[in-house]
Amino acid sequence: MRATVMYAAGDVRVEDVPDAQLVEPTDALVTVTRSAICGSDLWPYKQMESTPGGRRMGHEFIGVVEEAGAEVETVEKGDLVVAPFVWSDGTCVFCREGLHTSCLHGGRYGMDGVDGGQGEAVRVPQADGTLVPLRVEKDDALMPSLLTLSDVMSTGHHAALSAEVGPGKTVAIIGDGAVGLCGVIASKRLGAERIIMLGHHEDRIALAREFGATDIVEDRGEEAVKRVKELTDDLGAHSVLECVGHEESTVTAMLVARVGGAVGRVGVPQEDPISEGTSTFFDNVKIAGGPAPARAYIEELLPDVLEGRIDPGRVFDRVGPLDDVPDGYRAMNDREALKVLIQL
Amino acid sequence: MRATVMYAAGDVRVEDVPDAQLVEPTDALVTVTRSAICGSDLWPYKQMESTPGGRRMGHEFIGVVEEAGAEVETVEKGDLVVAPFVWSDGTCVFCREGLHTSCLHGGRYGMDGVDGGQGEAVRVPQADGTLVPLRVEKDDALMPSLLTLSDVMSTGHHAALSAEVGPGKTVAIIGDGAVGLCGVIASKRLGAERIIMLGHHEDRIALAREFGATDIVEDRGEEAVKRVKELTDDLGAHSVLECVGHEESTVTAMLVARVGGAVGRVGVPQEDPISEGTSTFFDNVKIAGGPAPARAYIEELLPDVLEGRIDPGRVFDRVGPLDDVPDGYRAMNDREALKVLIQL
Repeated sequence: MRATVMYAAGDVRVEDVPDAQLVEPTDALVTVTRSAICGSDLWPYKQMESTPGGRRMGHEFIGVVEEAGAEVETVEKGDLVVAPFVWSDGTCVFCREGLHTSCLHGGRYGMDGVDGGQGEAVRVPQADGTLVPLRVEKDDALMPSLLTLSDVMSTGHHAALSAEVGPGKTVAIIGDGAVGLCGVIASKRLGAERIIMLGHHEDRIALAREFGATDIVEDRGEEAVKRVKELTDDLGAHSVLECVGHEESTVTAMLVARVGGAVGRVGVPQEDPISEGTSTFFDNVKIAGGPAPARAYIEELLPDVLEGRIDPGRVFDRVGPLDDVPDGYRAMNDREALKVLIQL
Repeated sequence: MRATVMYAAGDVRVEDVPDAQLVEPTDALVTVTRSAICGSDLWPYKQMESTPGGRRMGHEFIGVVEEAGAEVETVEKGDLVVAPFVWSDGTCVFCREGLHTSCLHGGRYGMDGVDGGQGEAVRVPQADGTLVPLRVEKDDALMPSLLTLSDVMSTGHHAALSAEVGPGKTVAIIGDGAVGLCGVIASKRLGAERIIMLGHHEDRIALAREFGATDIVEDRGEEAVKRVKELTDDLGAHSVLECVGHEESTVTAMLVARVGGAVGRVGVPQEDPISEGTSTFFDNVKIAGGPAPARAYIEELLPDVLEGRIDPGRVFDRVGPLDDVPDGYRAMNDREALKVLIQL
């Protein structure tokens, strides 16, 4: 079969790999119909050292179950399913608490003999605990929005929950990438009164406004902090969604938080320490977040997508076949594309 | 009148200062009957540079209203009152949200013309928003416990609330000082199932056990983390109370937190950055806390003290007159005393 392999920074290839196949009786073999390139895929694309064996890529996909292992009970051949960005057993102590990203028996796609999502097929371990069946046709117009549940919309939702977004609150969102934009959708969905987007790409800002952003701050760093304070009677935002992961953006997030507020971090930290710990201490600002337990959120968000109340699929501004993946990485890295959907 | 003045690290004196008196019509003049030395007073005691004019000390006290300003409505001459460790107007946006420590028109004792609490009398600004009347006699046996509401018990309570302590939860408490011990009381009061105290002073550990600690970990650093993990099936604690404020203890707090757990920080940060930001990110650990809004908590905790359900006054293990203050600092700094009560 054909799948995406990264060999080094900037070197992404679609090539022949061994066919995906069942290994464990709890596996499902899924033929991929839609996949995507994630902002987090750009980190290795920018800096991965040369790896002769290559690394299988992709963790956001929708597909059709081709074959289910003997112990799989919740999905069967022919089912259309969406996969969260990590696989999980659904039964361990953390899964039962809704934190499937910390599953004691789970793991990531593209490693340890598990295929990546940017390919023709994937062996999905722990299929019962992982896959969510979609009761729609495989070419439904909602497909882009359903695909975002795999990661980016679930991650925006996690940022909003972690930042304690709720009715009447003022929200600030750091980062106008696909996650930040889904954070706008999530914040509006949770009842936020005011949504301030910090970003500076014209097309993304336009989409943020359509999704429900009420104010835009195009400055960065100290100027951005000043501007958010001005917009909020010098008080700051109750809820701050950190959707970037750089130290500078994390510091900005902490500084625009209102006294007693909460920062929800979902941008994967690119540098180690959280700075500004002291200012958040004195302001009683709560810092929460981490990888989104998409498996838990898909069930919560799915009805809103199916009934058209949210339309996160609009973050995809480029669609192509599997062979378009390498140029898709380049386009996202060059900011030519916001997010790429792969149609198989 | 006589009051405590610090001139440099290790140099604390009780000496004559100008009598406290009303300045604003919203002030109350309070004759102090009980005061205390706080763990946070030991930071300047260890490291304050020589200050020729000296610095007035103390922020925990109970006293009798001697005179109330013309605009004061809620307390009057003769009332016995407890003062939270900062003064606040009670009407600003943050006070209305219960975050009196961030009052827009509040401030600290011992500076800007406001007396310190370790003295014979204090001018208390914003008396209506600050003082809480105590409907007991001034020599009531509950006086030590009532005095802890000023800071140390309210701060332990804040740590527990920030760490989301609740029924059935496992709590780890970093620090066996007076705040950590009050954190044990607060955790038990909020329904914690298991309370693991990290500390290594025999007498304090004995008190922690009496207050409700179920397990004691005497190790430090990595060994302590390992031991807490062993005690919790390798999962860690749902709620962690950081009651020290050093970087090492903060890192320990983050590392013993369970996936999806919360760290409530009340130890005043002595070094700037929060380290281990990455591990808390991947474990979805929430970091919350800051200065305790004692003014809000006093009303919540007061009935429990008055009706004997909690007995935080037991953290005082030394009682003396005002002239004992300098040696009280030394005794606390040398770990000879846990917490000193000043009886005037």
